[in-house]
Amino acid sequence: MTIFIDMDEVIADAYEAFITNYNTDFNENLTIEDFKGAEAWEIIPQDRKKQMRKYLYTDGFFRSFKPIGNSQDVLEQLCKEHEVYIASAAMEFPNSLKEKSDWLDEYFPFIHWKNRILCGNKFILKGDLLIDDRAYNLKAFNGHSLLFTSPHNIYENSFPRANNWDEAYQFIKSIEK
Amino acid sequence: MTIFIDMDEVIADAYEAFITNYNTDFNENLTIEDFKGAEAWEIIPQDRKKQMRKYLYTDGFFRSFKPIGNSQDVLEQLCKEHEVYIASAAMEFPNSLKEKSDWLDEYFPFIHWKNRILCGNKFILKGDLLIDDRAYNLKAFNGHSLLFTSPHNIYENSFPRANNWDEAYQFIKSIEK
Repeated sequence: MTIFIDMDEVIADAYEAFITNYNTDFNENLTIEDFKGAEAWEIIPQDRKKQMRKYLYTDGFFRSFKPIGNSQDVLEQLCKEHEVYIASAAMEFPNSLKEKSDWLDEYFPFIHWKNRILCGNKFILKGDLLIDDRAYNLKAFNGHSLLFTSPHNIYENSFPRANNWDEAYQFIKSIEK
Repeated sequence: MTIFIDMDEVIADAYEAFITNYNTDFNENLTIEDFKGAEAWEIIPQDRKKQMRKYLYTDGFFRSFKPIGNSQDVLEQLCKEHEVYIASAAMEFPNSLKEKSDWLDEYFPFIHWKNRILCGNKFILKGDLLIDDRAYNLKAFNGHSLLFTSPHNIYENSFPRANNWDEAYQFIKSIEK
């Protein structure tokens, strides 16, 4: 199978980096629990949104993300069984492009550059499965869809869901048959 | 139609930038004629290949390319008629990623970030037409193919060919019917 895997909030922990920066800048104690069922920008006071947006344009922000759970181990295994591509809608943030490439070099070196895609729309991808935290990406994809749980999508119920990479791997096994 | 358009040697003049750098560095007088029917690295003396390769990793090299012919005008028109995507196999050169985004901002600002793809393999793209200077990209693409003439591909005869953007536009008109 050809499998496309999103980066942020699927293999790269964007919330953790955001919360760490936010708590430092505003002397707050936000936790991941505070973000459940809402977009990050919906729960931030109006007068702090500008600063929050600034993180996305700060050198090193995307590079600082930690890999999510056991994504490294599971993807390494998946690469032995399938054609695995990373597909990130990174073109919105040009300063993130190199950082995302460097990040993959560090944490997912087994994914060849030929299997890395930085794009905008994902419905132009041709393959069998898209794993993503955004319903609008999954909706437009012409193949199997798997929603990877992120705080913002916990009330979304239009797609099969994986709460972690073990569940994602089991889902892939189930559609192989 | 959904149309994917390659960057280097299709809308961005890589040869011109290479030749300019090479002639300056080695006090030579190479012209585009010297590259006909061969890859650039095939006609360069062995002891200069390292320097040539260095250009690809030099800051500003990809940003310095000039747009090819009337590609800007034709693509602006095409964007009114079709879904136009830029698809560049840029992931091999991480330092080029931001430069390619900046370059598109300058010369093709009408192509939204959602319609820009930096990838490796192009056979994962789903659409109606790929315009590319590389036969191996066209061969693997599951749609119409159009070879855009570049010095290195003049003896390739497996695909419909466009020698310039007026011919490419005419080809697109012909397959619309």
